[in-house]
Formats: sequence, structure tokens, C-alpha cells
Amino acid sequence: MTKFTTAMIREAAGRLAGRVVRTPLLSSPMLDEAVGAQVLVKAECLQTTGSFKIRGALNRILAIPPGERAAGVVTYSVGNHGQGVAAAANLLDCSAVVVLPTNAARIKVDNCRWWGAEVIFYDPATQDRRDVAEKIVHDRGMVLVPPFDDLDVMAGQGTVGLEIAAQLRERDLVPDDVLVACSGGGLSAGVITALRGEFPDIRPYLVEPAGRDKMARSLASGRRQELVAAPATVMDALAGPVPGTLPLAVLEKYQPFGLTVGDQDALEAVALAFRYLKIVLEPGGAAPLAAALTHKERFENHVVVLVASGGNIDDAVFVNAIQGAR
Amino acid sequence: MTKFTTAMIREAAGRLAGRVVRTPLLSSPMLDEAVGAQVLVKAECLQTTGSFKIRGALNRILAIPPGERAAGVVTYSVGNHGQGVAAAANLLDCSAVVVLPTNAARIKVDNCRWWGAEVIFYDPATQDRRDVAEKIVHDRGMVLVPPFDDLDVMAGQGTVGLEIAAQLRERDLVPDDVLVACSGGGLSAGVITALRGEFPDIRPYLVEPAGRDKMARSLASGRRQELVAAPATVMDALAGPVPGTLPLAVLEKYQPFGLTVGDQDALEAVALAFRYLKIVLEPGGAAPLAAALTHKERFENHVVVLVASGGNIDDAVFVNAIQGAR
Repeated sequence: MTKFTTAMIREAAGRLAGRVVRTPLLSSPMLDEAVGAQVLVKAECLQTTGSFKIRGALNRILAIPPGERAAGVVTYSVGNHGQGVAAAANLLDCSAVVVLPTNAARIKVDNCRWWGAEVIFYDPATQDRRDVAEKIVHDRGMVLVPPFDDLDVMAGQGTVGLEIAAQLRERDLVPDDVLVACSGGGLSAGVITALRGEFPDIRPYLVEPAGRDKMARSLASGRRQELVAAPATVMDALAGPVPGTLPLAVLEKYQPFGLTVGDQDALEAVALAFRYLKIVLEPGGAAPLAAALTHKERFENHVVVLVASGGNIDDAVFVNAIQGAR
Repeated sequence: MTKFTTAMIREAAGRLAGRVVRTPLLSSPMLDEAVGAQVLVKAECLQTTGSFKIRGALNRILAIPPGERAAGVVTYSVGNHGQGVAAAANLLDCSAVVVLPTNAARIKVDNCRWWGAEVIFYDPATQDRRDVAEKIVHDRGMVLVPPFDDLDVMAGQGTVGLEIAAQLRERDLVPDDVLVACSGGGLSAGVITALRGEFPDIRPYLVEPAGRDKMARSLASGRRQELVAAPATVMDALAGPVPGTLPLAVLEKYQPFGLTVGDQDALEAVALAFRYLKIVLEPGGAAPLAAALTHKERFENHVVVLVASGGNIDDAVFVNAIQGAR
């Protein structure tokens, strides 16, 4: 059995204190009316690098012995984790390589470079990103910072859940549900573990793109399901092909309920967050809001926490979301 | 001499505690690079109603004796103050009338109504909004909640400054400058008074639309200057024709430096806030950021506080800002 505990998340919170943003837990009476519930939105789009990913990356790099850290770190990512690693390495004065697909959103490529990381591209149609990254580990002696399948990374992401718990307590609120988007599962495993530790009755929901619900399928079948010939998705942050082994083992314990959302749902949620919350979300970051809106019968009059995990969206996609959603 | 003190702002903060959002003070290393300074952005777009205006409105309505409050309140506004009064009245269970120009941004009209206020339109070409509002005061016995020329309103807006001071202290920062947009002057008078009380050496800047710098002209001439035949502005939140008498008297004491920004500068700042901060600003709310960018030689290596006062922007204007700013 995987040993992943709230104590590990608390230790991560101690390490990250003062190094990451305590993002606000936002609400909007208009959004509450739209969902039919009391909705609290953890705005990780306001985190350094525009997503939660810097939390896990920092916690993982801080765990590397200083002697090894000097060689630098390498990672593979559809983008937000790459930015998180690049920024974390920058903060800790170590070098970083980010392996990105040739079709990564431009803003994510630019931002990795802005933080001082070297970007190496791979072709997602012909190459496995892990192979590319592991070759760099071998050739350069760098340390791999995996995007989700790592206890330190999961503990770092779990600090989002600890902050949510504290912010709910400040408002005397006890949550009924938490909705968190899932791709590899690092964020969801961390957040659900943290929140269950604080609120034993909270009901966890995993949100995945329609036709790409690899974690829900893995939980249902009891073994890791890889996506084969799955439909494309506008939710690029949730587009990885395979769930993490460690997150899967953790999530099995909590049996979260799986919800899926379509591209149009996600884009409408991006527009709603623009209008009611005045924040910028990327489609994957808006997936939990989309799920709350499209499955609102489940949440009637509940206190519902949504993790808005990121805001790194290309201009054209954002414009399309605003123009399309009326 | 006008008696407007930090004690009045502290009392307002006590009254508003738990009723308004303590909005975050955001930063972005990319924005710091763009400005060439350490920039802290007080994101009042994340306030209830999407602007700071609910602060002053609540503080003013709370000052009305309960017997009088029962008749309700009335206000005139280009929009954000109207929404603030509508929401404040809603929170305090009293009725509200908002007098709006026929050309008010649609989102602002809709939002006043959503909060339960009655909207009465006036024609800005032929009618004076104060006359329309004062007729309602006379006919219905309602209490006028002025947008800026009122000590309770100014004290409420000043709570933005107290929060900024506390948030700077949490980060061990001493600010060199504060930039705040100015129309009637309620926000700037409140914020500058609050911040000067905490940081005696801070340098205050007022930001106004180019060709509409009525407060700077009033300060320079020593008497209230009304705009005549001034150019139109995309910064609708800063489009009032006349500065407040009380704010002018307060600002005279601090001698803030006036900066102006053009429409295109403001729209580019909206796009930059979208890209780097992941927040939604309206053009008037982005005016201080625009001023920091267009007058960056003044702020080199300073610690600069910008008040981002609101985010109520029509879809088309936002799309235009994102598409136009590359």
C-alpha cells in the first residue's frame, strides 16, 4: 500500500511557505445562482506561473540533496508542469530542461524559456516523452522531476487542499463536495487527501475530458488504463495519455466519483469565470466549474469547492470562449 | 479644512470586516520585468460586484439611522458605484434606485438589476444625473448615496489602502509609490490617506484619462475644474465630468503627481493583466498599470503599488483589447 499521508502534505506546506502564493478562494453570488449551490473557487490561476504546478515542482526539487541538485533538473510536460519546474529551478538557482511536445501552446513554451529553462521538443506522434527525458537524465546527470507520479510532487500539490481547508474554516464553512480536474492525478490525489484529513465527510469528484476519463476507467477496472485513439480535447492541461500509478493507488482509497465535460462545456465555463469571477482560466482549469454547471442536480444547495487549476490559455482560445458562449 | 482621518478609515474597516472581500495583492515576475520595478497589484476586480465601490457604499449606508434606511437609497453612477450601492443595499436588506446614463455598459445595467435595484435612465446629453437623483430623494424620501463626495464613502474606499499596507507588511515591503486612478477622487483620497498614514514617504500618483485630467487641473489651479468638450474615453469608470469637492480638499494636502494615459495604453494594460496576472480588468481599472508602463522611467527599481479598481468590461471591449495588443 502506498504511504501518502497528510503529514507529508503538511511538511510540504512548511517548505513552500513564503515561496508560493496563497491563492484566494473566490466566490460570486451570480455564480452561486448559476450553479444552484454555494460555490468556492480556489484560484490557482493566480499562482506563480499561472498554475498550481510550481508547488509540486518546488517540493520535489527541495528534496534533492544539494550535491545532486547542482546538475540541474529535467521534466516532460504538456506545459504547466514544465513552467512550474522552470520557475522552481529558477527560484532555487538550479538549471532546468523541459521536454515539450511540438504542438504545445505557445504561451507555455515562451514561459518555460522566460524562466530560464532550456526547451527540447519531441514529436508526440512518434516519440515517448519519458524516453526523451530519461536520455537527458542519462547523458547530463540531471534529476528527473516527474509531473505527477511522485510522492513529493503529490504532497506539494496537496498544499492546495490545506489552504482550501484553512480558507473554509475562516468563513465557518464545511464543504459538501470538492471537484478537481484529473489527468495524471497528482493534484487530485494531493487535494483529496488533504481535504479528507480536515473534513472527513467531504465527497470528492474527479473531472476529466469526455472520452478521456482515464482515471475514472482505471478506478473502475482496478488497473491503470491508458488512452488509445481518444478524441482530441481543448483541455490541453488534461491531455496526458496515462494516469499515475501512485495517484491511482491513493485515489482508490477515497473512491472519488468521476464526471466528464465536453470542450464546449469547458469553454463556457471559461467565459463564466471571466464574467462572474474576473479571472482567466484555461479550459482544463475551468473543467471543475464546467462539471458543476453541467451536473448541477448533484450539488443543489451544497457547499461546493472547485479547484481552478490554471490560467495559461492562448489568446485565440480565450477570445473564442468569450465570443462563443453567449 | 476638511476633517478626513485615518481613524475614520480604520472605523470603516471595522464595519466592513466580513462583509467585503480582502482582495489579494498580486505580483508577476514577468510584469516586474515589463515595468522595470517590483509591482504589486491590488486586485479589486475580485471584489464583490467586480469593483471597490461596494466598500464606500456599505460604509455610507451603515451610517444611515435604521429608521431612515427603511425608505431605501438612491444613487447616480456611470456604473460601478451603482452596482456597489445595489449590492450593499441588498446585503443590508434595503431597497435601492440607481440612476444610470442611457449609454452605460450593458453589464453594469444588468448587474444593478441582478442585485435587486431599480434602474432609472437619464440622457447624459440633456439631463444632469444629480437632478434626476435628487428628484427621487424628494419624491420617495430615499437617502442619496453619492459616488465620491462624501466622507463615509471616502473612508470606505480608503479600506483598500489599509489592506494594501497590511499586505505589504506581510511581505516586509516598503512601497516607494502608489498609483491610483481618479475620477471623482473618492478612491484616491481614501487610499492615499490610508497609505500615507502607514508609509509617510510613499509618493502618490493620480492616473486620469488623457485630455480628461480634471483632478490634476483642479489641484494645479487650486479650484474645482469641470470638463468641457473633453474627448471621449474607453475608461468609462473614469468618465465623470467633475472631481469631488471633499476629495479635492483631501488630495491638496498630499499633492499627488498627475499622470495621464490614452485609450490604447489602457487597452494594452488590460491585455497585459490578462496575460501575466490572469485577472480581468476594465480599461479604467487598468489605467494605473498603463501609467506604470508608459511612464516607467519614473519607477525604475522601485516598489510600486497599483490599485486595479475594477473588472466590469463588456465582452467586445475585452476581445478588442486582447486582439489589438500584440
